[in-house]
Amino acid sequence: MRLTAFSNYALRTLQFAALRAPARTRIDEIADAHGINRAHIVKIVHLLGREGYLETRRGRGGGFTLARPPEAISVGEILRLTEGPFELVECHHAPTNTCPLIGVCRLSKALAKALDAFLASLDAVTIADIAANRGALLARLSPESDADQAPEPSGRGAVVHHSGL
Amino acid sequence: MRLTAFSNYALRTLQFAALRAPARTRIDEIADAHGINRAHIVKIVHLLGREGYLETRRGRGGGFTLARPPEAISVGEILRLTEGPFELVECHHAPTNTCPLIGVCRLSKALAKALDAFLASLDAVTIADIAANRGALLARLSPESDADQAPEPSGRGAVVHHSGL
Repeated sequence: MRLTAFSNYALRTLQFAALRAPARTRIDEIADAHGINRAHIVKIVHLLGREGYLETRRGRGGGFTLARPPEAISVGEILRLTEGPFELVECHHAPTNTCPLIGVCRLSKALAKALDAFLASLDAVTIADIAANRGALLARLSPESDADQAPEPSGRGAVVHHSGL
Repeated sequence: MRLTAFSNYALRTLQFAALRAPARTRIDEIADAHGINRAHIVKIVHLLGREGYLETRRGRGGGFTLARPPEAISVGEILRLTEGPFELVECHHAPTNTCPLIGVCRLSKALAKALDAFLASLDAVTIADIAANRGALLARLSPESDADQAPEPSGRGAVVHHSGL
């Protein structure tokens, strides 16, 4: 049982944006920090922007910030958005279901209830919670920059700025 | 987020064996009922036998039965056995971890806690529970046989017996 990489990096993107606030975050920073292709992050930022979780600005000096306070975004709601329909087993997705037990299966109902417990646990966790230990996280994600950086770093050790997001 | 097919059919195998008790179940019956390759069920029966959940008998008249009362086998314990290490995200599997946040990431801890809630919910569900509505389930799984069949069906409409499990 595994979350999609899309879900994982959507949460990482929001976590990163919360850590960098009030500064903007660029897609390249997240791709570099996590060692993944920027095309994945482009798709994630597009979805999170469209759904009102990120505010994006194009061009030089661009990037994105959280569009809501991090305390107002739960991990559970993001997973509901990014996992699409949660299908623990095939029969949870009715249109393509081939299970002969649909409608009478108590295992299916038990799994749905367990999934509710899983998501309820994550509804109680916010982006602010997973970004609360800011210093420790930034030291890992941007080891070349100061974890207590000012919004506009400059001079030696400053983050290299690319044009675009 | 999805359970492996192996987990799903391991639970279906135990459910089927509980429904057929005290009669033995054959691998072909489960493969036919669920429309899947018998090789999958062979592997599942091997594991469940080795781990003490099934008693198997080879040859003509062979098959398998539950090795424990269905009330004494929880869905949660079977998933822990069949999913291998639960890796909701890559970083939950330390040997291959590449996440820069390992050790300081509160998202990882929140996901582990949610997984505990998921499994705790399924620890409270037994194979007896998911086989309790015996008549409705057997009508779907073996529509040609009588849901209230005697342990040794015979004559017209009886299940065709193959040699082996």
